[in-house]
Amino acid sequence: MGRITDRRRVTRIRRGRAPDTRADVLTVEEPLEIRLAGAPLTVTMRTPGHDVELAAGFLLAEGVIDAAEQFVTARYCAGAVASGPGGTEQNTYNVLEVALGPGARPPATALRNFATTSSCGVCGTAQIEALESASSFDPADDDVRVGADFLLELPERLRERQEVFARTGGLHAAALFDADSGELLVAREDVGRHNAVDKVLGWACLQGRLPVRRSVMQVSGRTSFELVQKAAMAGVPILSAVSAPSSLAVDLAAARGLTLAGFVRGDSLVLYSRPDRVIDEEHRNTDDGEGET
Amino acid sequence: MGRITDRRRVTRIRRGRAPDTRADVLTVEEPLEIRLAGAPLTVTMRTPGHDVELAAGFLLAEGVIDAAEQFVTARYCAGAVASGPGGTEQNTYNVLEVALGPGARPPATALRNFATTSSCGVCGTAQIEALESASSFDPADDDVRVGADFLLELPERLRERQEVFARTGGLHAAALFDADSGELLVAREDVGRHNAVDKVLGWACLQGRLPVRRSVMQVSGRTSFELVQKAAMAGVPILSAVSAPSSLAVDLAAARGLTLAGFVRGDSLVLYSRPDRVIDEEHRNTDDGEGET
Repeated sequence: MGRITDRRRVTRIRRGRAPDTRADVLTVEEPLEIRLAGAPLTVTMRTPGHDVELAAGFLLAEGVIDAAEQFVTARYCAGAVASGPGGTEQNTYNVLEVALGPGARPPATALRNFATTSSCGVCGTAQIEALESASSFDPADDDVRVGADFLLELPERLRERQEVFARTGGLHAAALFDADSGELLVAREDVGRHNAVDKVLGWACLQGRLPVRRSVMQVSGRTSFELVQKAAMAGVPILSAVSAPSSLAVDLAAARGLTLAGFVRGDSLVLYSRPDRVIDEEHRNTDDGEGET
Repeated sequence: MGRITDRRRVTRIRRGRAPDTRADVLTVEEPLEIRLAGAPLTVTMRTPGHDVELAAGFLLAEGVIDAAEQFVTARYCAGAVASGPGGTEQNTYNVLEVALGPGARPPATALRNFATTSSCGVCGTAQIEALESASSFDPADDDVRVGADFLLELPERLRERQEVFARTGGLHAAALFDADSGELLVAREDVGRHNAVDKVLGWACLQGRLPVRRSVMQVSGRTSFELVQKAAMAGVPILSAVSAPSSLAVDLAAARGLTLAGFVRGDSLVLYSRPDRVIDEEHRNTDDGEGET
């Protein structure tokens, strides 16, 4: 696409040197409007590329689809134009029209995000209960086990696959690993962490891999409620992050039976829920954790 | 409030040691629903605290208000309850009812975010043009100048004021500095970077300080379109970030005449727009940059 990075003229100031002006590489951020039956559903600010996967992953997380055959077609809206050089009109490739198939559950109105569906007593508990009722898959009964050493390798394996970050420093990333073979299945980057996750899980949906059992999703930053929600909606049993989770991320992971790892860095990691899935080869398994008394 | 951090039981795994289970401190994330005249406007996932400022900053960024007197009252909805210990009902403090005054421009329908207002040809240009028409303030003509050494100090000054980050590693932060006195005016933290910025700019609005002329807003992470949008809507002339901006962040800053600094770390920084406002004391000023030929 040639639109993942772009150049802008910048001024660099360094102590002890004269300022210099040069071209610098930036991560591209552009709006993507997702439409259903001609009606706008949402607009997300994203890095262009893998837009169809992004749309599929978004619809999966919102409970609209849960299988590849419910996502029939996606095409860029030809009416979406911007002025090009010389006044010509160009497709912006920023409006995607999705056609749903039998079994899909299109929402009644445009969504803000999943949280909008909760009613007056808006609280973390309400959020979690609303999500549980909307889920097709249940990660809780996935009996996969992984070694701590395997988890500790994943941030570096994700970084090796990040094509744009090294150039711009401006991207979040997410990847899906097969827990049995250890294989990296897919990795995606985006200015928005939720978009990187949508692209990964949208890929899994379109590949007919839902629910994504016996897998680990590794993400580059922190984990919020929203990321755990997306993983749970796809049936991912283990979510691993380089940085900290929020309280509601941990509560949702515990409620849905998903293993949440954080601060996965160097030689250590922290498990916030369902530690029984992570085996410390040196020190037997950690199955003495919460909730199993 | 006692709800900014909370504790959960975690399992820590370190190579060469036995796993240990202990209580760990997490950043709290909870939904906040903002209502106008009883109707839900938006739900944001935020860290509790400074909710009134958050609501004011959100409404400012959306073009609904641009002065303190347009934001008459905000109160937690008493009907918002969750089950407490022993089955008692407790106010969740997660629904905030805002009453607007004369001069405010309430939106016709619930917002997703500003991007929703763009029409079919959704592209960066449309986003920027829509924003320009919605703005009450214009940072372009602010003739403030700051030294590069002053900007280089700000990330550390912001970190010193971050109360929660050191404990949890889970928070974004934003702060507003007076460019003339160098004084830190306000600093706020949140799980969402947009919320931290909304709290800072909402504080400025409620203090009657709009437009926020002759100021620098420092943020802890990257800059997206959304953060530049919020700064521009408040009239902030200089936005400085520890990490990279996106392409659309740079384009919007250039269009609105806002100085955007990034990678402000150690002894160096990068200026992406309006470098004329940053004076490098050792090497004269950088006024030979873009757009002034």
